[in-house]
Amino acid sequence: MKISILTLFPEYFEPLWNTSIIKRAKEKDLFEYEVIDFRKFTQEKHGHVDDTPYGGGAGMVLMCQPILDALKSIRTEDSTVILLTPQGQTFNQSRAKELSLKDHLIFICGHYEGFDERIRDYVDIQMSLGDFVLTGGESACVVMCDAILRLLPGVIRQDSWQDDSFSNGLLEYPQYTKPVEYDGKRVPDVLLSGHHANIAKWRHQKALENTYYHRKDLLNEYPLTKEDKDFLDSLLPKE
Amino acid sequence: MKISILTLFPEYFEPLWNTSIIKRAKEKDLFEYEVIDFRKFTQEKHGHVDDTPYGGGAGMVLMCQPILDALKSIRTEDSTVILLTPQGQTFNQSRAKELSLKDHLIFICGHYEGFDERIRDYVDIQMSLGDFVLTGGESACVVMCDAILRLLPGVIRQDSWQDDSFSNGLLEYPQYTKPVEYDGKRVPDVLLSGHHANIAKWRHQKALENTYYHRKDLLNEYPLTKEDKDFLDSLLPKE
Repeated sequence: MKISILTLFPEYFEPLWNTSIIKRAKEKDLFEYEVIDFRKFTQEKHGHVDDTPYGGGAGMVLMCQPILDALKSIRTEDSTVILLTPQGQTFNQSRAKELSLKDHLIFICGHYEGFDERIRDYVDIQMSLGDFVLTGGESACVVMCDAILRLLPGVIRQDSWQDDSFSNGLLEYPQYTKPVEYDGKRVPDVLLSGHHANIAKWRHQKALENTYYHRKDLLNEYPLTKEDKDFLDSLLPKE
Repeated sequence: MKISILTLFPEYFEPLWNTSIIKRAKEKDLFEYEVIDFRKFTQEKHGHVDDTPYGGGAGMVLMCQPILDALKSIRTEDSTVILLTPQGQTFNQSRAKELSLKDHLIFICGHYEGFDERIRDYVDIQMSLGDFVLTGGESACVVMCDAILRLLPGVIRQDSWQDDSFSNGLLEYPQYTKPVEYDGKRVPDVLLSGHHANIAKWRHQKALENTYYHRKDLLNEYPLTKEDKDFLDSLLPKE
């Protein structure tokens, strides 16, 4: 997997490459990356990459030429080009998984007021991180790269992510660590019992319960067993 | 507005404070911030902040003591404490607006496998950036801070964000800048006409159209006029 990022702010990505789990993955050569400042591609004589919008209005709009020339310089048959934009499909864990299987991802980060509409014609996927507005696509791109890179083989232990929230369609069960009692609050007895089957059952039920109370919508997609359904029924208020 | 961040990776936030629009806002003292490494608060003799999960399983779980002692050291009556967690409410533009009106936001970033469940009892809001899993809360926190800080008075011109996607309930209309023709693709004539009323009408209809095709769900919340409805009807395929 190779990730290429087109941005005006290459330094925005330094913490991604140089922190914690992704840093270790980089040191083990589990992925390649390049961050390209598309300002270097501009043919505008003062080095500008943006200009005022046709039709008037506040702010500046990124021009086609610098971004698309930068894109042309790195794109191959194996590339998947992703434009970060509020009107794109919403990023989620299954899209992270799909993208983690690609050979070469190219992300285009807009900034300021946005980019010339014609740029959309040259990309494969338009993607949004959520229903909010950012000063630029950079921070959203860091999030997407983090979510994608951690799924690459060898980055984290597989048994470490198979219970993650969203990975199996449920929110995660509660986790506890030392001490057994903190500020009067005790770890649930079952977790101290050493009884693996009971612990597994409790965790599964707590994941169901968390999902039911916080993200009921996720249960529509989850293959509930008869036992799961009985458990969820038991959560309903009694008459 | 003051933002405090509790994290094991303070350096993750450097690009946020030192890039573009947020950097200029910082230089104009439009907000205050502090980033606190909660490892400094641990009482564990080797400096650890995490331990194995009760009940077994892969990965490490962040302990209550370092995070909650760090929190105690900065929390005041004016603080709103936000825990980043997949089971939180989903962050969006209206939550960004609400949070931009607070005096003091404290974000707690987990990392690795998650944190001791008992930490949830000490926070005001549990927030999620979306339905995906990250190596830590840091990148999500950068996104939220960016979305919130740009709404503070003086950070960007108000006329610059009132047409942003999601700000008025619609996706944004298309933007174009020079040249008039790029790779055979022309800017729409109306934007070159200088006719302000026509341009405003075109932009509004394009925003409606974008929203209709890409995020129809947003229209349920949008106060459509009779004219808007007639326009949307005209987009439907004719018999």
